[in-house]
Parts: sequence; structure tokens; C-alpha cells
Amino acid sequence: MKIDVLTLFPEMFDGVFHSSILGKAAEKEIVKLNAINFRPYAGNKHGTVDDTPYGGGGGMVLKPDPIFAAVEDILSKTELPEGLGSTEANDDPSNESVGRKRPRVILMCPQGETFTQSKAEELSLEEHLIFICGHYEGYDERIREHLVTDELSIGDYVLTGGELPAMVIIDSVVRLLPGVLGNETSAVTDSFSTGLLEYPHYTRPAEFRGWKVPDILLSGHHANIDRWRREQALLRTWQRRPELLERLELSKTDQAFLDKLRRQTEEHTES
Amino acid sequence: MKIDVLTLFPEMFDGVFHSSILGKAAEKEIVKLNAINFRPYAGNKHGTVDDTPYGGGGGMVLKPDPIFAAVEDILSKTELPEGLGSTEANDDPSNESVGRKRPRVILMCPQGETFTQSKAEELSLEEHLIFICGHYEGYDERIREHLVTDELSIGDYVLTGGELPAMVIIDSVVRLLPGVLGNETSAVTDSFSTGLLEYPHYTRPAEFRGWKVPDILLSGHHANIDRWRREQALLRTWQRRPELLERLELSKTDQAFLDKLRRQTEEHTES
Repeated sequence: MKIDVLTLFPEMFDGVFHSSILGKAAEKEIVKLNAINFRPYAGNKHGTVDDTPYGGGGGMVLKPDPIFAAVEDILSKTELPEGLGSTEANDDPSNESVGRKRPRVILMCPQGETFTQSKAEELSLEEHLIFICGHYEGYDERIREHLVTDELSIGDYVLTGGELPAMVIIDSVVRLLPGVLGNETSAVTDSFSTGLLEYPHYTRPAEFRGWKVPDILLSGHHANIDRWRREQALLRTWQRRPELLERLELSKTDQAFLDKLRRQTEEHTES
Repeated sequence: MKIDVLTLFPEMFDGVFHSSILGKAAEKEIVKLNAINFRPYAGNKHGTVDDTPYGGGGGMVLKPDPIFAAVEDILSKTELPEGLGSTEANDDPSNESVGRKRPRVILMCPQGETFTQSKAEELSLEEHLIFICGHYEGYDERIREHLVTDELSIGDYVLTGGELPAMVIIDSVVRLLPGVLGNETSAVTDSFSTGLLEYPHYTRPAEFRGWKVPDILLSGHHANIDRWRREQALLRTWQRRPELLERLELSKTDQAFLDKLRRQTEEHTES
């Protein structure tokens, strides 16, 4: 997979692109990560990429020309079947029949679709992702209408720019690529794949400052341990994110446990 | 404000802590940002910070001892009124009457409360934040029960570690501190402060590849422009995030516009 990020702050990506999973995935050549400054595409000697908004008001707006030029330059350097290299071809549905996929051009913005794990899975099947990151500024609407394929937001909070959201999405996508994760990363972090929040984890020491590991985890009875963990995951999800339970198909045993919880609400929420 | 981040990958923070808003806020000494490796707190010569889970299963679990030791070391170096330096004091509500606040100890985890703009505002009033970032691993439950004051998640997707979520939260909090943002950053990015998604922005050129800026923005009629922008914000929110509208108190004019939209559903969703 190839990932290009258009930003005015490419240096923000140094630490993240070279550490941990992303660094290793790049080293193994599973992914090629580029942070590209789009200021050189401004086409004017001052490198001006933004301007005041038509109609007045505060803030600055990213001009369309530098962003279009940068994306088109990336596309022109990407080997693609004929007809996929220009943005004009973006509206031609017949291109979908071509074997090689057109790159996804993703605008990071608060108005975008909220990013989820299923979106991460969808993007992990692509060959080429291009992220556009604004910083302080708004985007000229023509970028949104005529250049991008996706608009994504990572959550309902205000950030300084699209750089951190792009890193978040890239991390979540790259860890899904075959060969990236080793065994050390398997089950523990996969909260959202079972649809439940995780059960509590414990490791050595068995007693720390007087706080003990639950006896059941030291019992060696695997069926009991599995049941305890399942119930703890149900309990935690019910306490913290009850809306997640509505989306799941639960077994009769799970359902009976939840019914019991609902009847005993007060004791359980205090535990 | 002082922000300490406990992580096994402090180098991930280099680019982000030294660029843009965070770099400038640190330079102006509005915030002091530290990424601290907690491996030296392992207390064993191999620097082992994780271990296999009690009860079996895949993955690794972060041991309680290194995290407690690291947090307590930070607290011991922080000037605090008597009685606030030890974690044992965390359970004593009488400390709340002391002028200086106890640091917030924030665990980054998928089971945490979903981070929002109002949480950013709440955290921006603190004097000292300590973030704990796991990486691949789960956390020993005793960290959760006896050390942290908050558990936060930035959204429903799986990431490699807590580092990127901590950066996201730090960015959203620091930009709210007095003196951090200049005028260039004011209105444009503040989607979530009005409760609506933003209206479309346009800047020069007035015509780009045949795509024109809407006439109204060039009209100079400010009242009309304001009304158009309000309606565009309502339209976009209604199309993309209708649940946001339910939380707002809207004027009669806004309500009339939305009623019209609802009646004309089909034409508008295609526009």
C-alpha cells in the first residue's frame, strides 16, 4: 500500500512514521509512507496556499489550486491504467471495471463521516490512499466537491489540523495489512472486533500493595475463566457503553446474564 | 499547564510536540510537555514492563509496578500541598478543598469514556495532566482501579497504542489555553462550538476550472450572506449528522428552514 499525506507540516509525521508498527511496516516495505508539503504547489513566489474567505468573516481558507496541483502531481507519478491519472476521470464509473483501483483521496475535516473500525477495514483493502490535511484553515468548497472521494473525521472535538487525525487513520489501517502485526498484538487490543469492551486483565504480581488478582484467574479452570471473562466484558459494556449491546446478537446465556444485571442494577453498578 | 506522557515510545512525540501550535505553546511557556519512557521504572535489569495474562489467552498485559512507580515519581517531583503527593491520598475527598488541584491521571484505552469537546474544555482548566499510554498490551486492572482518575478513548477504532490518542487530546486541550491561538485560527475550525457543521468556504480564484464561487458571496449583502451561511450549515448538518440537530435550541427561522428541507427531502439530498 502507498500512503501520501499532503500537509504544511510534514515534520509532524517524522516520529510517528518511523516508530513502532508504522516504522516496521515501512521497513518491511508493506507500506510506503510519504508526508508531502503542498506549499511548493502554490504556483506563486510567496508560496501562498490560503486566502481570506469570500463573503467575509474570520479565518483563512485553503485555495483550491495548490491542493489540486499536488494531488494531480501524485497521480501523474503513480503507475495507473490509462484514463485513471487525471482527476477528470473521477466521475467516470466505467473506470471501476479496470483491475487497478483509483486512489482514494481523503479530506480530513470535522464535517466528515465519523471514522470507525469498519471504515479502517474498508480502507485497508485499497492500494493507494492520499490524505489532505488542512491546518487552522477551512477548505475551499471546490476541493470537497471535485477532488476528494472521502471526507473523514475521527471524532467530535476541535483539533488544530488534519495531521493527527490522518496519523490515527493511517495507524488503524496499516495494522490491518497482512504481515504487519506479530503475535504479540493479537487478542488484547481488539475491543471493537467482538463488539464488546474488554474484560479486565491481570498479570504478575498476584498481589500488589494488597490488591489481589481474582481467584478464578488462578484456578486453572478454563471454562470458568472463559465464562467469567465473557460476563465481565458484558458487565463493562453494559455499564459504560450500553448502546454497543444493541448492535450485537447475544447468546441465551449472555442474555440471561444481562437480564440478571438489569434486575440487580444497584449492587452491580457499585461493584 | 504541565503535561507528562508515560510511554514506551517517547520518540513518537518529537515531531508533534515541536511543531505548530504545541511547539509554539511550549516555546511561550504556556505548557510544559514531557514524553517519559516508563521502562526505567520496571525495577528489573531487563526492563520488563509486561507479562502474560493470568488465566491464559493471547497478548501481553502491562504490569502495575512500573506504571505506579513512574506516576509516583512524577508526583513526587511536582510541588504540591502536603498530602497530595502520594497515590493513597487519591481516595481522600477532603483534598478537594486544597487550593492546588491534584493532577489528572488519564489512561488511554478503548474502554474509556469517548472524548468530546466538552471534555477538552474541562481538561483545559487543569494545572497538570498525566497520560498513560499502553502499546499493544492491555493494562493490569489494578492500574485502572487504584491509580487513574480518567479513562478516555478518542473513538471506536483499534489503534496500536495510546500515543496517537494522547497527542489528539493534548492538541485539543492546549489550543484552548489562553494565549495559545492567534487570530488566524478563530472561527473557521470551530465546528463543534456552534453545534452545527460548518457552512461551505470559498476563496480566490472566483472561478477555478469553470467552477464558480456562489454569487451571493460576491454580492456584498452581509445579512443575506449570513442567512445563506446559516442555512448551508443547517443543511449540511441535517444531511450528514442529523443527530446533532436534536441537541440544539434552534430559532424559529432555523426551524422553518429545516421544516422546508424535510418537506423537500428528495431534491435537497441530491443537491
